[in-house]
Amino acid sequence: MTEVTSAGASPSGLFVTLEGGDGVGKTTQARLLEEWLAGQGRTVVRTREPGGTEVGVLIRDIVLHHRGDVAPRAEALLYAADRAHHIETVVRPAIARGEVVIQDRYLDSSVAYQGAGRVLDADEVRDLSLWAADGLLPQVTVLLDLDPTAARARLDADDKPFDRLEAEKHDFHARVRSAFLALAASEPERFLVLDASRPVDEIAAAIRERVSSVL
Amino acid sequence: MTEVTSAGASPSGLFVTLEGGDGVGKTTQARLLEEWLAGQGRTVVRTREPGGTEVGVLIRDIVLHHRGDVAPRAEALLYAADRAHHIETVVRPAIARGEVVIQDRYLDSSVAYQGAGRVLDADEVRDLSLWAADGLLPQVTVLLDLDPTAARARLDADDKPFDRLEAEKHDFHARVRSAFLALAASEPERFLVLDASRPVDEIAAAIRERVSSVL
Repeated sequence: MTEVTSAGASPSGLFVTLEGGDGVGKTTQARLLEEWLAGQGRTVVRTREPGGTEVGVLIRDIVLHHRGDVAPRAEALLYAADRAHHIETVVRPAIARGEVVIQDRYLDSSVAYQGAGRVLDADEVRDLSLWAADGLLPQVTVLLDLDPTAARARLDADDKPFDRLEAEKHDFHARVRSAFLALAASEPERFLVLDASRPVDEIAAAIRERVSSVL
Repeated sequence: MTEVTSAGASPSGLFVTLEGGDGVGKTTQARLLEEWLAGQGRTVVRTREPGGTEVGVLIRDIVLHHRGDVAPRAEALLYAADRAHHIETVVRPAIARGEVVIQDRYLDSSVAYQGAGRVLDADEVRDLSLWAADGLLPQVTVLLDLDPTAARARLDADDKPFDRLEAEKHDFHARVRSAFLALAASEPERFLVLDASRPVDEIAAAIRERVSSVL
């Protein structure tokens, strides 16, 4: 549906995304990477989807306030619209200025979560996201990989036995994790997969090493 | 990107769309067709995009209030989201109940206007719309064809000479008209092309004849 192009048209701009389930440490690692890059004199833009723009906030409000009432394809298209606007008005201009964009979640999250939810076809969701972004892919995508049970324990110290709903949730998050790992395996040059159970500093060092290699 | 399916899964449901530029008489013909069908004992749903649903009104508000500030792909995706929600929650259920849906503008308008605007590729816009609607095409699409100058005269009795902006507008509407005619030529079985300068009653009769043939 669209050509895949690299973000590297500008010699020094860089687009880095962080992926993985909730509770794997994406925010912490984004902050540490930003601090390190700032220390190197780089201008950093930290951003996220959905809701990274004024228009995006309005789009997110529609999805959140009408959750369950929005047709699945409409929801996917709304998220894609948010992505299109965010990439065009925030990410591409920053890259063009030679800045480093660190983004919490991007199209791999859309594909992994939609695929795991089994409502829409994952390939269609990927095509839609790529069309929205006019083919923009990050130079580096860090996947923080963690067993869903461990991630849940980080988010919630309550370790009572799973009821049926919890078991379903666990099954869903296990599918999301598998989907992320499959995406990483299909694009090994773009992805850096790290065991999110390792110490924070070790993970940060591995991310810095990869980012250094493409700067 | 998606398979094209017919709306005719239900034996008696019917999906009719009216297309053409502003001022060609779509609203008048939709009303006359509705009255005739109602006289035949049919239940009719008259609807439109964008904004045919509560979610659609919110989407339209974003596009209208941020006009010019929304990235072109984001705008196309927002309209597609409106379409996806409208088709899924209004049009398909009505067809499934065996009702007749008469819709003012559908994907042909998206393709004709986007293609004429030359910002996005018309084929991509069509793919996007078809994905949004999960392939739903009308059984009958009435194209009310009219020279843009004549349409303009209907909308505005002021016939002062064209200035440059008016000339550009005329050129745009001439491209929209050509795009509609090309779409009709590519799907002659779905389209009924009528000269919108003919008397209203003659046009209404031609539409009734075609609709009768598929009821």
